Amino acid sequence: MKIRPLHDRLIVKRIEAERTTASGIVIPDSAGEKPDQGQVLAVGNGKILENGEVRKLDVKVGDRVLFGKYSGQTVKVDGEELLVMREEDIMGVVEL
Amino acid sequence: MKIRPLHDRLIVKRIEAERTTASGIVIPDSAGEKPDQGQVLAVGNGKILENGEVRKLDVKVGDRVLFGKYSGQTVKVDGEELLVMREEDIMGVVEL
Amino acid sequence: MKIRPLHDRLIVKRIEAERTTASGIVIPDSAGEKPDQGQVLAVGNGKILENGEVRKLDVKVGDRVLFGKYSGQTVKVDGEELLVMREEDIMGVVEL
Amino acid sequence: MKIRPLHDRLIVKRIEAERTTASGIVIPDSAGEKPDQGQVLAVGNGKILENGEVRKLDVKVGDRVLFGKYSGQTVKVDGEELLVMREEDIMGVVEL
Amino acid sequence: MKIRPLHDRLIVKRIEAERTTASGIVIPDSAGEKPDQGQVLAVGNGKILENGEVRKLDVKVGDRVLFGKYSGQTVKVDGEELLVMREEDIMGVVEL
Amino acid sequence: MKIRPLHDRLIVKRIEAERTTASGIVIPDSAGEKPDQGQVLAVGNGKILENGEVRKLDVKVGDRVLFGKYSGQTVKVDGEELLVMREEDIMGVVEL
Amino acid sequence: MKIRPLHDRLIVKRIEAERTTASGIVIPDSAGEKPDQGQVLAVGNGKILENGEVRKLDVKVGDRVLFGKYSGQTVKVDGEELLVMREEDIMGVVEL
Repeated sequence: MKIRPLHDRLIVKRIEAERTTASGIVIPDSAGEKPDQGQVLAVGNGKILENGEVRKLDVKVGDRVLFGKYSGQTVKVDGEELLVMREEDIMGVVEL
Repeated sequence: MKIRPLHDRLIVKRIEAERTTASGIVIPDSAGEKPDQGQVLAVGNGKILENGEVRKLDVKVGDRVLFGKYSGQTVKVDGEELLVMREEDIMGVVEL
Repeated sequence: MKIRPLHDRLIVKRIEAERTTASGIVIPDSAGEKPDQGQVLAVGNGKILENGEVRKLDVKVGDRVLFGKYSGQTVKVDGEELLVMREEDIMGVVEL
Repeated sequence: MKIRPLHDRLIVKRIEAERTTASGIVIPDSAGEKPDQGQVLAVGNGKILENGEVRKLDVKVGDRVLFGKYSGQTVKVDGEELLVMREEDIMGVVEL
Repeated sequence: MKIRPLHDRLIVKRIEAERTTASGIVIPDSAGEKPDQGQVLAVGNGKILENGEVRKLDVKVGDRVLFGKYSGQTVKVDGEELLVMREEDIMGVVEL
Repeated sequence: MKIRPLHDRLIVKRIEAERTTASGIVIPDSAGEKPDQGQVLAVGNGKILENGEVRKLDVKVGDRVLFGKYSGQTVKVDGEELLVMREEDIMGVVEL
Repeated sequence: MKIRPLHDRLIVKRIEAERTTASGIVIPDSAGEKPDQGQVLAVGNGKILENGEVRKLDVKVGDRVLFGKYSGQTVKVDGEELLVMREEDIMGVVEL
């Protein structure tokens, strides 16, 4: 069972364990929205601009992305917890 | 008796039972808007963009869609409870 | 005496009795905005888009429409209570 | 002494007495914004759209219009109380 | 010493005395924003539209204008109290 | 050390002493945002419009400008207190 | 490990020590958002405009930039604390 996200939305699988890695990206417990990481499982066809154009997303399936911790909505697919969010919520792509 | 939705609206029949299926998509009882599933019964002609173009919807009749639990408005047609919502409220299409 | 609505507005005559019809559309007494039905008596020339185009309305005179219960403004014309609302407030056209 | 309204504004003279006419449009004392009637004395050159076009108003001098009771601003010209409002505030043109 | 207003702004000299003239425009002491009159001393080059066009203002130097009493910002130039406001704040041009 | 402002921002050096000059512009201590004067030290390349055009600013280096007292952000460069603000915050150019 | 920012976002490394330098830019402890400095480590491909155009950022890798103290989101990459922010949050480029 899969979810095909619409327009500028993405399906992201959160990477929880990475948060305690010493040399990796560590998100401090500061106030405000806390960034987090995940892997992109599916992307929508693109964002609909006001001139009618559909702009393909920059983020691709397989990308490791950085996003705000409370971004998106959580769903469970075949026992796996996933996130549905907009590309707008993605701060950057992590390059290892 | 049928409802023909206008513009970027859809008529969706909620699929309640799916929520307890072990291997299916399960929506956790977390805070905030809870996602849900339904089947699309009718779609509008498309969203009117500011350049005058009418953009056909990506969602089709028969699609199984994922949406926020409190999205849309409930109506009863011939004893059946339906939802009227905008494509914007649809997070993704479920592919079995 | 008649009212000619401007732009994307419509004149709608509410159909009150329909709400208790067993096989028709019944609006549950849930929280939030309650949908309702009416017949379109007059429509404006169309919505003015930002590119200067006037887009004709999809709703036509005689259509039976579904709308939010508190949508529009109530006026009495020749003893008859009517609603003035925008096409944006119309959720769909009821096809019998 | 006259006022020439700018852009999409109109000068309207309220028709107070009409509100108690048995066969005319009667505005009920319900909650929310109460509609009212008036005669258009002057109209602006048109609304400036974002594409630079100036769109002539649909409402003409002499039209009898329906508007929200608290729409516009009141001014007194030569002892006569007038309203300055935007065409956007006009719900429809009354045709007798 | 003069102020050259930017874009769609104007320099207006308020005409206070006119408010008690019997046959002129009198602004009632009602609730809300109270209209007022003034003479235009300088106008900006025009409003910048989103398509890059600069639209010249409709109001000209020397015009007598009607505006909301609390519109604009007050400055003193060579002992004279002036107002800087946007053309958007002008309701109409008074024609004597 | 210099700051090159981005887009539609400017670097302004406030002219404090001018506020008590008898024949100059005097800003009254009224409620609301109080206007102020300054000299433009640097301007950005221009405002990015939604059609992709970059519109050069009307304000030039050396101009004496009038702005709201609390507009912009204060920075100290080489011991000198400067303001970074948007052209939108500038009400007019003072011509002596 | 690196982060590639999306669209109009940048990766900035804050320059903390500069704040106490006598002849440099000193940010006063006033109310409101306090400006700060940093070095740009990475920039996105550009801002997506509503006409579909992607506008390259003005800020370049290596630029020293001035921004509001609480702008952006903090992440730690390989033990180093970085900021992810939008070009919109950048007030200017510091030229030494």
